[in-house]
Amino acid sequence: MLQLLDQVRIILINTTHPGNIGGAARAMKNMGLSELVLVEPRCFPSEEADRRAVSAKDILDKAVVVDTVEEALEGCGLVLGTSARERRIPWPLFDPRDSAEQAKQSLQKGNKVAIMFGREDRGLTNEELQKCHFHVHIPTNEDYSSLNLAAAVQVLSYELRMSLLGEHPLEQKNAEDWDYELADAGEVEKMMVHLEQVLTEIEFLDPENPRQVMARLRRLYNRQRLDTMEVNILRGILASTQKTIAKSQK
Amino acid sequence: MLQLLDQVRIILINTTHPGNIGGAARAMKNMGLSELVLVEPRCFPSEEADRRAVSAKDILDKAVVVDTVEEALEGCGLVLGTSARERRIPWPLFDPRDSAEQAKQSLQKGNKVAIMFGREDRGLTNEELQKCHFHVHIPTNEDYSSLNLAAAVQVLSYELRMSLLGEHPLEQKNAEDWDYELADAGEVEKMMVHLEQVLTEIEFLDPENPRQVMARLRRLYNRQRLDTMEVNILRGILASTQKTIAKSQK
Repeated sequence: MLQLLDQVRIILINTTHPGNIGGAARAMKNMGLSELVLVEPRCFPSEEADRRAVSAKDILDKAVVVDTVEEALEGCGLVLGTSARERRIPWPLFDPRDSAEQAKQSLQKGNKVAIMFGREDRGLTNEELQKCHFHVHIPTNEDYSSLNLAAAVQVLSYELRMSLLGEHPLEQKNAEDWDYELADAGEVEKMMVHLEQVLTEIEFLDPENPRQVMARLRRLYNRQRLDTMEVNILRGILASTQKTIAKSQK
Repeated sequence: MLQLLDQVRIILINTTHPGNIGGAARAMKNMGLSELVLVEPRCFPSEEADRRAVSAKDILDKAVVVDTVEEALEGCGLVLGTSARERRIPWPLFDPRDSAEQAKQSLQKGNKVAIMFGREDRGLTNEELQKCHFHVHIPTNEDYSSLNLAAAVQVLSYELRMSLLGEHPLEQKNAEDWDYELADAGEVEKMMVHLEQVLTEIEFLDPENPRQVMARLRRLYNRQRLDTMEVNILRGILASTQKTIAKSQK
């Protein structure tokens, strides 16, 4: 079961201190994780990162650096984002233990799992958090809640390993067979872009004053883990809407 | 219950790198622990320790430095030692989760609990380990098992906090904190009827040959427990679609 840890992708976004990247790599390797993706790190590769990684330098060597969160999430069926604060729109929120259990179920169905960690000073943006199926909150002391980035990666990686070790066997109720594969994050993202476009065309959405419509729709469609057939249906609806409008205008 | 964390003493023995002492203090404070005892640290106080501790400098300021393990353990009713390796004499060995549960029971009986962490390179000596009621082993990747000292303190402190918080601390919060009430079945049903009507108008749905489109859409929207705002948004989209089509046809 532990080999499923190979299907977990740790994503660090806009990391400022290279030492934290190294510390994260070490925490990952200690727990058996190996796939690291960096979105626009301030400084990488870096000697400081190598030094902190110690024997986990191989993880840094094969780390992939990308420009956008979308690239980082490509191919992932379940997306988790770590969050320290209350957000304006509440999102499904789990502690690291329950998050690891969710991740395990997804891994067992053959999905890749992404866990996003934000900037040292401000975490993930609202936009990034809205790309997540759910948020992970590490319960912290209210008087001092800002966890070191590598420490947060350590806690999540540890919980993933614990859940896959299965020392505390959990119910498999939710692991029933589904009839279609779950859609990956990229497909859902394309659908959201298509949806936004159509909503603008039908003047439901005012680009000048979008309010929180798209955030709410993202939350809705991420909350439920869309399968590939559902994404096809929803995109079909969008395409038909556009076709009907075009035809009427002729 | 969390105030019992005040009765936990973290003991670091012969720490070589002051940065690790600072990192440990930060991990402790993030999780609500406060009592740090250092047995013959190589270099303390230290600027590097202060730097890594960030806002947990108060823990370093009141840390007690002693010469012997016996002094460090004074007044503690339960003593745990972290151990990465198999020892010659098998000792009761628990993972961090079960260790935290044991610690919790001891704390609830009014005991002070000590957790000892050894040297960066060789951990605790056999003599030190034999002073423990039981050993804690953080499950690690066999190919790379040497956890950073501050990371080990992080994992143990996290598990202590989790055990004192009780199971699934966020579950209740998810239920309480949602911003809108869940929609009732009648509202969702009206939305589904409206949806079917629009899908027919845009010729996505053929009433003569509906296949399973509506069944799939019903499953999709029922799976996620829509809230009232989401139902409003979805109905608004349907209404705007109809309005746009009507306008184009004029």
